[in-house]
Amino acid sequence: MNNLDDIVSLCKRRGFIFPGSDVYGGMAGTWDFGPLGVTLKNNIVNTWWNYWVDQRDDMFGIDAAILMNPRTWVASGHTSTFADPLVECKECHSRFRADKLVDGYSESITTEEFLAQNPVCPVCGKTNWSSIRKFNMMFTTHVGAVTPEDAEGDEAAKELLNRSTTYLRPETAQGIFTNYKNVVDTIYPNLPFGLCQQGKSFRNEISPRDFILRDRECSQLEIEYFVHPDTWSENFDKILEEYRGFLKDKMGLPTEKIHELEVPAEDRAHYSKRTVDIMFDYPNGEEELMGIAYRTDFDLQNIARESGKNMDYRDKNTGETFVPHVIEPSIGVERLFLAVLSTAYTEDEINGEKRIVLRLPENLAPYKFCVSPLLKNKPELVEKAKTVYEKLKAKYTFVTWDDSGNIGKRYRKQDEIGTPKCVVIDFDTLEDGTVTVRDRDTAEQVRVKIEEL
Amino acid sequence: MNNLDDIVSLCKRRGFIFPGSDVYGGMAGTWDFGPLGVTLKNNIVNTWWNYWVDQRDDMFGIDAAILMNPRTWVASGHTSTFADPLVECKECHSRFRADKLVDGYSESITTEEFLAQNPVCPVCGKTNWSSIRKFNMMFTTHVGAVTPEDAEGDEAAKELLNRSTTYLRPETAQGIFTNYKNVVDTIYPNLPFGLCQQGKSFRNEISPRDFILRDRECSQLEIEYFVHPDTWSENFDKILEEYRGFLKDKMGLPTEKIHELEVPAEDRAHYSKRTVDIMFDYPNGEEELMGIAYRTDFDLQNIARESGKNMDYRDKNTGETFVPHVIEPSIGVERLFLAVLSTAYTEDEINGEKRIVLRLPENLAPYKFCVSPLLKNKPELVEKAKTVYEKLKAKYTFVTWDDSGNIGKRYRKQDEIGTPKCVVIDFDTLEDGTVTVRDRDTAEQVRVKIEEL
Repeated sequence: MNNLDDIVSLCKRRGFIFPGSDVYGGMAGTWDFGPLGVTLKNNIVNTWWNYWVDQRDDMFGIDAAILMNPRTWVASGHTSTFADPLVECKECHSRFRADKLVDGYSESITTEEFLAQNPVCPVCGKTNWSSIRKFNMMFTTHVGAVTPEDAEGDEAAKELLNRSTTYLRPETAQGIFTNYKNVVDTIYPNLPFGLCQQGKSFRNEISPRDFILRDRECSQLEIEYFVHPDTWSENFDKILEEYRGFLKDKMGLPTEKIHELEVPAEDRAHYSKRTVDIMFDYPNGEEELMGIAYRTDFDLQNIARESGKNMDYRDKNTGETFVPHVIEPSIGVERLFLAVLSTAYTEDEINGEKRIVLRLPENLAPYKFCVSPLLKNKPELVEKAKTVYEKLKAKYTFVTWDDSGNIGKRYRKQDEIGTPKCVVIDFDTLEDGTVTVRDRDTAEQVRVKIEEL
Repeated sequence: MNNLDDIVSLCKRRGFIFPGSDVYGGMAGTWDFGPLGVTLKNNIVNTWWNYWVDQRDDMFGIDAAILMNPRTWVASGHTSTFADPLVECKECHSRFRADKLVDGYSESITTEEFLAQNPVCPVCGKTNWSSIRKFNMMFTTHVGAVTPEDAEGDEAAKELLNRSTTYLRPETAQGIFTNYKNVVDTIYPNLPFGLCQQGKSFRNEISPRDFILRDRECSQLEIEYFVHPDTWSENFDKILEEYRGFLKDKMGLPTEKIHELEVPAEDRAHYSKRTVDIMFDYPNGEEELMGIAYRTDFDLQNIARESGKNMDYRDKNTGETFVPHVIEPSIGVERLFLAVLSTAYTEDEINGEKRIVLRLPENLAPYKFCVSPLLKNKPELVEKAKTVYEKLKAKYTFVTWDDSGNIGKRYRKQDEIGTPKCVVIDFDTLEDGTVTVRDRDTAEQVRVKIEEL
């Protein structure tokens, strides 16, 4: 029904999302959230945190640093396997992700498979390709007082530089796993328990695309749920069922747009016995919204091996000692944001007039009310409207004031930013103390006494 | 009264803050927030956001990407001037910040001034120094499909690599300034208005130190408040006064620990006509908590010059057109966190027994209540306590359950994590429906009916 370009356009026009570094011509794969976008995003993130952490007895928060000891990424396998297939055009030196230039292949494509389709370079139009090589998607940086310039021709400095190399974390999950032992040793949680984190992750995508769906910098909401190995299956089902409820009841995502995909054994990571990808009908097609993976004790065993530390959990009642297994539900804030936004985005007609309306759930809408004087050049209306505004703002916080243009324009603006109710103060208000309350979704107007708002 | 080591120790013991990448022996200058730390931090950040953004009509949020177009840092001056004085010991190749090895100098120290004090190397004990050179504190990375390895001996790749170099943002402020025009063009705010952002910044400190005070990765809470040039002085006073109220009323910081320092002209940035540093009495001495700077139109003019875009603001009523001036209050979350924590940290005696107690303000405490059965091996007490716990949790969310050890141990634990009230269910509860409510600060106990909690 709606398409991605319309949503991108609304996002920029209304101050939800701007291209990153817009004023300098952009920075591919980055996006900046404007005043309305940051409020919608905060509402999503805070609702998630409230649902999964605050309301529960078995979940705890973590906030680990983005810069981690590089051994983290050796242990997790990211330094060796977190890579995309890169080809370079030998004519114009442009670089591409190989599987995106041909049909029917994923990131495991070989040079032979690529060349067999004889693709032309999208930049210069020629066909003269390098071999495919693996391009690691972690961003590299150096921590400490040595620079790449120092290292040129200075072996001592080069050695220092190599030892100081680290990465921007490509996932938040490892910040949880590396803190598992600290948490167990300080707050002694009973199994099963989960550690929840929200924060930035970075992936040096060769070709960022699809608006905020495939960006280079994103926010993740990840949970590692630690369970007794014998109970992984029922805990997996429990988390999956709870996430269904979260997506439907808290995020307002319609069940018919959500498709659960049991990932077959040959497509799963070697250690995972079950993975469910939750797909969503985005404007540009079905795409992954989130995943729930059973990761066994793969990560904790990797950390135990790399660090030499013991990752055992000791059951306080039975005395049994073991390394817990893990269920990992992982969702990207931007993917969730776009699912919410594209579900809400509607074009319809009111009294023969076309409009765009964001039918956002009330708990997520940036503003709950807009207060307006019918005419802005009537001081008595403006003054009365201000008192109504102050009253609602004290009670609900998320209230906006609008006296721009005419009332029809204001309704169209508030429809576009998803404000559920517009409250309008007119001359009758001065007489009888009632106001017009207009509903975003139906455009119906009712008279309500100020005290009853 | 208290010292930093005691606080660091409490933070680790109770799960507030762990050293970053602890399991791998650490990552200097990074810290991970544990379950209690993340809750306290969220309470601080959310209180700030509510006070400065949600409750106000003249402030709006922004959330810009960490990776920005590198021209941002050319325009802001960071590529040329964001540097510390670095010396290297020619004997052992250790590197230091020069002004930290001698007395009485700041980062503008010269090689001559440094050598005149004849400092010895703290690592090898010898005295054989390089000249001082400026070390830029921005972390460098490369965005896009080219790696430093590609560039070795390949001029085309080297050129690509140079063009793809960017930085982890050293401040959040530029993410606001670069979005000023987008915001003005989409939500048409009236002057004065402020843009607020919270997020991560990164500084490659040569010598990170003082716990979370001088770390390599920190979170900032920054506001750029745009005003008419003629009104900067009264707006500066207004923001300063509002911040005083915030620190005292919302963060619970005592006035006597706060010292406002009018920065003299010779120590201010060349463009600033007034800067106030707000200093705080930390356990290890007086240190900067935050700063409020009048930045004139320095940043917007820099962006106009570098981007070629117009940064004018047009007054809707008067038609006057000008580049706004800016008041910038800037505070680090970790500095605020440590100010709150060190103010709360107290060692006292209750009935002749020493204890540690965190006298956190109620609005910031990770848990508001702890519910406990007097004895954990009496099922009737545990059951009754569970119903009280569920009832309080439904109402206040931030409620914890504790049935470990004996009641004295539980009180000491809850004192250390700053829980204002402990609710204990005993045999009298089963008889008359009252519970013991123990106060954290006074250790006094009163009987209260369950319905009156």
